[in-house]
Amino acid sequence: MSVSAFSHPYLGGLLGDEETGRYFTAEAEVAAMLAFERARADAQAKAGLIPVAAAERIAHACGAFQPDMAGLCDATARDGVVVPELVRQLKQSIGPDAGKHIHFGATSQDVIDTALMLRVKQVCSLFLARLGELDADFRELDASFGHRPLMAYTRMQAAIPITVGDRIGAWREPLERHRERLERVQASSLAIQLGGAAGTLDKLGDRGAAVRLAVATELGLVAAPQWQSQRDRIAEFASLLSLVSGSLGKFGQDIALLAQAGEEVELSGGGGSSAMAHKQNPVAAEALVALARFNATQVSGLHQSLVHEQERSGSAWTLEWMLLPPMILATGASLRLALELTRNIRSLGAS
Amino acid sequence: MSVSAFSHPYLGGLLGDEETGRYFTAEAEVAAMLAFERARADAQAKAGLIPVAAAERIAHACGAFQPDMAGLCDATARDGVVVPELVRQLKQSIGPDAGKHIHFGATSQDVIDTALMLRVKQVCSLFLARLGELDADFRELDASFGHRPLMAYTRMQAAIPITVGDRIGAWREPLERHRERLERVQASSLAIQLGGAAGTLDKLGDRGAAVRLAVATELGLVAAPQWQSQRDRIAEFASLLSLVSGSLGKFGQDIALLAQAGEEVELSGGGGSSAMAHKQNPVAAEALVALARFNATQVSGLHQSLVHEQERSGSAWTLEWMLLPPMILATGASLRLALELTRNIRSLGAS
Amino acid sequence: MSVSAFSHPYLGGLLGDEETGRYFTAEAEVAAMLAFERARADAQAKAGLIPVAAAERIAHACGAFQPDMAGLCDATARDGVVVPELVRQLKQSIGPDAGKHIHFGATSQDVIDTALMLRVKQVCSLFLARLGELDADFRELDASFGHRPLMAYTRMQAAIPITVGDRIGAWREPLERHRERLERVQASSLAIQLGGAAGTLDKLGDRGAAVRLAVATELGLVAAPQWQSQRDRIAEFASLLSLVSGSLGKFGQDIALLAQAGEEVELSGGGGSSAMAHKQNPVAAEALVALARFNATQVSGLHQSLVHEQERSGSAWTLEWMLLPPMILATGASLRLALELTRNIRSLGAS
Amino acid sequence: MSVSAFSHPYLGGLLGDEETGRYFTAEAEVAAMLAFERARADAQAKAGLIPVAAAERIAHACGAFQPDMAGLCDATARDGVVVPELVRQLKQSIGPDAGKHIHFGATSQDVIDTALMLRVKQVCSLFLARLGELDADFRELDASFGHRPLMAYTRMQAAIPITVGDRIGAWREPLERHRERLERVQASSLAIQLGGAAGTLDKLGDRGAAVRLAVATELGLVAAPQWQSQRDRIAEFASLLSLVSGSLGKFGQDIALLAQAGEEVELSGGGGSSAMAHKQNPVAAEALVALARFNATQVSGLHQSLVHEQERSGSAWTLEWMLLPPMILATGASLRLALELTRNIRSLGAS
Repeated sequence: MSVSAFSHPYLGGLLGDEETGRYFTAEAEVAAMLAFERARADAQAKAGLIPVAAAERIAHACGAFQPDMAGLCDATARDGVVVPELVRQLKQSIGPDAGKHIHFGATSQDVIDTALMLRVKQVCSLFLARLGELDADFRELDASFGHRPLMAYTRMQAAIPITVGDRIGAWREPLERHRERLERVQASSLAIQLGGAAGTLDKLGDRGAAVRLAVATELGLVAAPQWQSQRDRIAEFASLLSLVSGSLGKFGQDIALLAQAGEEVELSGGGGSSAMAHKQNPVAAEALVALARFNATQVSGLHQSLVHEQERSGSAWTLEWMLLPPMILATGASLRLALELTRNIRSLGAS
Repeated sequence: MSVSAFSHPYLGGLLGDEETGRYFTAEAEVAAMLAFERARADAQAKAGLIPVAAAERIAHACGAFQPDMAGLCDATARDGVVVPELVRQLKQSIGPDAGKHIHFGATSQDVIDTALMLRVKQVCSLFLARLGELDADFRELDASFGHRPLMAYTRMQAAIPITVGDRIGAWREPLERHRERLERVQASSLAIQLGGAAGTLDKLGDRGAAVRLAVATELGLVAAPQWQSQRDRIAEFASLLSLVSGSLGKFGQDIALLAQAGEEVELSGGGGSSAMAHKQNPVAAEALVALARFNATQVSGLHQSLVHEQERSGSAWTLEWMLLPPMILATGASLRLALELTRNIRSLGAS
Repeated sequence: MSVSAFSHPYLGGLLGDEETGRYFTAEAEVAAMLAFERARADAQAKAGLIPVAAAERIAHACGAFQPDMAGLCDATARDGVVVPELVRQLKQSIGPDAGKHIHFGATSQDVIDTALMLRVKQVCSLFLARLGELDADFRELDASFGHRPLMAYTRMQAAIPITVGDRIGAWREPLERHRERLERVQASSLAIQLGGAAGTLDKLGDRGAAVRLAVATELGLVAAPQWQSQRDRIAEFASLLSLVSGSLGKFGQDIALLAQAGEEVELSGGGGSSAMAHKQNPVAAEALVALARFNATQVSGLHQSLVHEQERSGSAWTLEWMLLPPMILATGASLRLALELTRNIRSLGAS
Repeated sequence: MSVSAFSHPYLGGLLGDEETGRYFTAEAEVAAMLAFERARADAQAKAGLIPVAAAERIAHACGAFQPDMAGLCDATARDGVVVPELVRQLKQSIGPDAGKHIHFGATSQDVIDTALMLRVKQVCSLFLARLGELDADFRELDASFGHRPLMAYTRMQAAIPITVGDRIGAWREPLERHRERLERVQASSLAIQLGGAAGTLDKLGDRGAAVRLAVATELGLVAAPQWQSQRDRIAEFASLLSLVSGSLGKFGQDIALLAQAGEEVELSGGGGSSAMAHKQNPVAAEALVALARFNATQVSGLHQSLVHEQERSGSAWTLEWMLLPPMILATGASLRLALELTRNIRSLGAS
């Protein structure tokens, strides 16, 4: 099935992003869940909650474990979440002795939310790097063409001449703020989720906080108290994704309008038409607008899922699973296309 | 990449729908596009616009054609649409003589929009059948439990006793209206798209309307004038999908609330917990709520894409590609889960 | 407070619509609620459920009744709905004898939903009339300029010449379908809501259906069974509003792009700039785009409110109250502005 | 017209918020616009750009000015923005001499965006104060009932007992993060907008930056470069509003579910029913859910308006005007209702 344009055999060429997509394969999610289990077992062993030997066996088993994906699929259909079956398979692969210490004191949400945070952290690094490259590209364009005149348009009407540099500033400056936002989120908002059955770490006695800190440290995440029904970090991150793609959508829209007028931009690359051989379509620019509107659509659903009832809402949580990965992909694709577009700009402004 | 929950190796077990998904593989889309090309060539041959032999060669070639998917992917990245490269591959497979009659008088949007309509038509049939099954299930539940008392709740407070039949009516009746809506859409709104480069069928001379009628008849679609920048049919269909999943979300929410209270419903199946062996979670009911909220989120983007500028908006059209297939999948999954849920209801109301 | 742009002392000049707004004053809502109470009493008297004299007294009192708005406001804050206090005030104005027959067998939702349907019906007539006027305007423009050449643009690039008539067709044709949709909704979907406390008309004995039919007939609404937790009619109507404003947004976007290029359209009217005296901004065209995107945003929330739990969801219902009236206003404003814009078109295409 | 539930004569009792609404009257906006004009004139006089006497006359006139609202309304309909007419009225009131220095070097967007920021700043203070009160309320509830047992629910099923304090933590902790977010936004993101016709302060020569700094300092806003087509600050603020109302929606949903079960919460206040005298509806709790979903709907449109083309998009900007004030009101109402609700909690958990 190729229902998603982001992973579609041919639409993926336009709208996908391989580098971002690597964090959202089933294999990558399983690997992140195993990293959590391993860090948990290790921290619990150090806290004297489970035998050291069991933690070592778990670490070893996690390294070698190959999930039975068909089994995970059937069980997710039944349980609404993959973790019970993953834990069962993991226990089976490890044998009853150490196996009984798998997943000790944890719950599905600990595994899945932490595995998400681990990958979001890597995504933040990727996006920060790309924003840095974009910044450099815009500065280079500014160095080349910034001094040239450009007609300003307000309310879609010619206003007064500005410079190309003024316009480039309107594209580049928001990205600087987005980098600050992303850095802040990465440093302070990507927290481990560890709470146990109902958020109270009831099985860890007085070692709960210490174990949480140790696991967070091992995984490079913020050691905050459990947040399983507090989804503001998720909705905030989604909003930030949409800010990024929204600003890039403005860049795309501006380039498409320049390309329509035809006199103040020169682009290389660009798309062919099946009916008109003479046309060269500003494909990346238009895709940036589409991706901005896509994320602006999705962000609403992640704000809806803030209404996450009681200790865990199956429906609000499942809604996140449907919405967040495509938003991350769309943002990755948006950054990729913006870089492609800046590099295809041969000229800006009146020479 | 498994970015979409609908086609994810294990989340797909919960949220996917294989039967619906068959219409949204790349292969299914290519097949539908070839069906269009074949019908177009045939109609144009009958109208004397291209040689009959060429049309026969095209029909034959379309039957045997295997696309080079990697080539389609690269070209879509460049052109923003798959058709120019698909046409090129098709021409190559058929040779220059008949090849020059491939895609004659058509444009990318004719191929893609018509190929979409062909599959939407089949999806309507599938959904109508499932709505019929659901209707039967609800009537059966009504026959079994309809006479029993049920506490009505208004504003989340116990109100007065009603009957189980009253509640089932609130689940079943909207589905009856949805069937009428779907039947009307299927009969009158799924139109062929055939307009050529800018919608005027400029290359077909005075045969434009006749060719359009012939292609529509062959493909079983409504023979309306081109609608390439008039996307109301798409947004209307998306709205209808969300009406369906929304009504099923109400059913899911009601079952989840009944299951929470615990005394007026008995369910079989249902999900296990990784931390609490005693629990049986109303997984399908919760997923119905999530799918309803998913579609309610997406529908906004398809209404945004009504602002489809000029003769073809690359950005508004691309936005549709990202939004509509997941909505169709979500609706298919919603119907599948609702059928699963009705069949897992062992008892409703106070016995 | 002027929080709404639609009723704002000066923004209302741009974005409001007086004629539509008349149906959404508090006074208009109270009047519609009284019309319901009167028709209900009359039908119940005819059915022998309440004394004829009481119904006459009620009819008379409803004609003269002036609500204490401050009292309604305080009570709505407390009760979450205006009806209990409105009924109390009405009873007080009529005296205890007939007063006890006020609101007999009905519930808040009966009063409010029916009062909404009554006004939606009038709104449909208003919008149908305006769509008819727009159709005439477009036909007139077509008669004047339809034969002229116009450059088609696909993907924001010049494609091939079409005619002005082709472009006008893309603006006019969807409106024809919207008229059909509105007529169908008006004829078959605007149903009375009459169900009593939990939808079962429990207090009307075997006269429930007869009373419902009589009230519906009196009020000119469809006599459907109660639909208090089945909100598909509301979400469908909202979707249709957004289809209308979306198609007009495409018209606005096209005019704004034509005005930017500057050679193929000539407009009268249009806005001044505070900084640049030479500019003439295509204000109505831009407002049409904004209104389209506004409705495309709102429609999502009305689909969210399809998840209307149990016999009455306070939260889903309240959400409708916040979303639907502004959507109706936005659609009215959109039609008003489209008419203004068509009449300000002095020339289209190359002369 | 009472199209907005927030300023509706009786719905406003439930959904409005007088204190927040004060910042969104037409009068408050005009006053903020005049504050901008005054600060601008003052700074320009100090920079030697306009005569000191003219600045004094302007300051004096701004203090006494009473706008002709009907005139503003007509002109906004024509110009799409109120500023040209406001400037004209202001000039008329002040006479030609000083009048020609009104609005010097500025443009509509400078006036309106800065006037918005001034009021957003006050709104932030109001919301911070309310979040502080809510924090105190939750701490008090925790002190009273925190030690009591409460049944945790995951996926709408009883899980294991937790404490009331655990649940209160899930309500209170996100608000702490929201306060930090609001403080950060207030300190660093509420920037003056001052750019002139096309953002380049073309008429201020080399004094542009100095004047901007002086105006920002006078008005208590951040002295950032013009951001007229960079709307990330607006969309970020809107996202934050929705984070706040979303977290409060979770609180409301939890209380409504507790009230439905009926054993672990005791509420005073609460709403009456028109049909069932025995009911006490959790009105504020339900309204919190509705307001959360309202804002989650609106936030999408403010992200759409990030695609703000060229130097000023009439359509994207107008869209903000329709969306942001209602979101601010909804957030204010949400905070007001949450405070009302915490104070109506008589008991939580099993005693």
